[in-house]
Amino acid sequence: MILVHHLQIGRPLFTVFLLEELGLDYELKLYTRNELGRAPAELKEAHPLGKSPVIEDGDITLAESGAIAWHLVEHYDVEGRFSPPPLSQKAARAEWFQWLHYTEASAFAPLLLKLLLMREAEPKPQLISMFAAGEVALQLGYIQDFLGDKAYILGADLQLPDFGVAYITQMADRLGELGPYPKLKAYLDRATARPAYARALKKTGG
Amino acid sequence: MILVHHLQIGRPLFTVFLLEELGLDYELKLYTRNELGRAPAELKEAHPLGKSPVIEDGDITLAESGAIAWHLVEHYDVEGRFSPPPLSQKAARAEWFQWLHYTEASAFAPLLLKLLLMREAEPKPQLISMFAAGEVALQLGYIQDFLGDKAYILGADLQLPDFGVAYITQMADRLGELGPYPKLKAYLDRATARPAYARALKKTGG
Repeated sequence: MILVHHLQIGRPLFTVFLLEELGLDYELKLYTRNELGRAPAELKEAHPLGKSPVIEDGDITLAESGAIAWHLVEHYDVEGRFSPPPLSQKAARAEWFQWLHYTEASAFAPLLLKLLLMREAEPKPQLISMFAAGEVALQLGYIQDFLGDKAYILGADLQLPDFGVAYITQMADRLGELGPYPKLKAYLDRATARPAYARALKKTGG
Repeated sequence: MILVHHLQIGRPLFTVFLLEELGLDYELKLYTRNELGRAPAELKEAHPLGKSPVIEDGDITLAESGAIAWHLVEHYDVEGRFSPPPLSQKAARAEWFQWLHYTEASAFAPLLLKLLLMREAEPKPQLISMFAAGEVALQLGYIQDFLGDKAYILGADLQLPDFGVAYITQMADRLGELGPYPKLKAYLDRATARPAYARALKKTGG
């Protein structure tokens, strides 16, 4: 049985969303943020970085959303529904892995900066504010352009990289950044309207 | 033939380092940073995000260091030297992928913040400064503890996740953050003493 160390509110919800889509049994250990919005110290007992999501799978303790998603799919996606295109489809497979990595890497840091800037006292730092604004526009513009009129980021069906894209678009929405990106808002609404997301939300509280 | 769009100075050097370790033929297209330390606009012709590294492999254009490293190993690591442990070694394989993702994700954002803070005018933003200091210490402490007395992050030999760890430790070193982490400094010295790194440095200029 997989155990998810789940911190409300944020990225771990999308790990639980994946578990629900896969139809796997799992247990939850719920944590709430402290008054500063940070993870509680007890999460360090689960993993030295004290972050979430962290999963336990037997004697394995695993951090990093992208690595967790890949682990779950490699071992438990019996129907291959969320597996990448085969090695022979070189271009499609490369794109799939780019999107799996991208949402945890380049796409995330600018939004983290935006979040920190909202909490920072006046006067806001000028260079960091400019950098964050430019990078958020670059990343969200890229995602919307790539999405185009597709239902999900790589086509008509929800695929593994979508869990990261849905997280990024939800974070952008919460930061009030999705206004200029109606296709991303529609995408987020589409992803979060899925029954598996509703179950994940209900079981975790967010 | 693989083409690397290479921006001096930073992460792309570690993609070229990997190509040198693999003994692959490749071409370089070199770019230099502008006076603000940012990538030049012409990099957007290679990829809409305008970042580096970006590689071209036939008709595939691929961004994100972690995805590029994985693509190169999946298709061109004929000896399997940088391939992950097999599926049957579940724990070792999970750890390998965690480290592949981690250096591009959780480990990177705090160092980016430090870099931006160095360039920010006085007064430095208090909350972001505190956040960055705490997170840098958390991440570098975690990496050093995990490394312990091993030569490379996962054992005696250089493995694929080491290219990301070497990048992170080099960035931390350039930001003056490695002082409290002598084992990470020794690790960086060990990685960058390899002939393949010297060749990458010589061909790219950094």
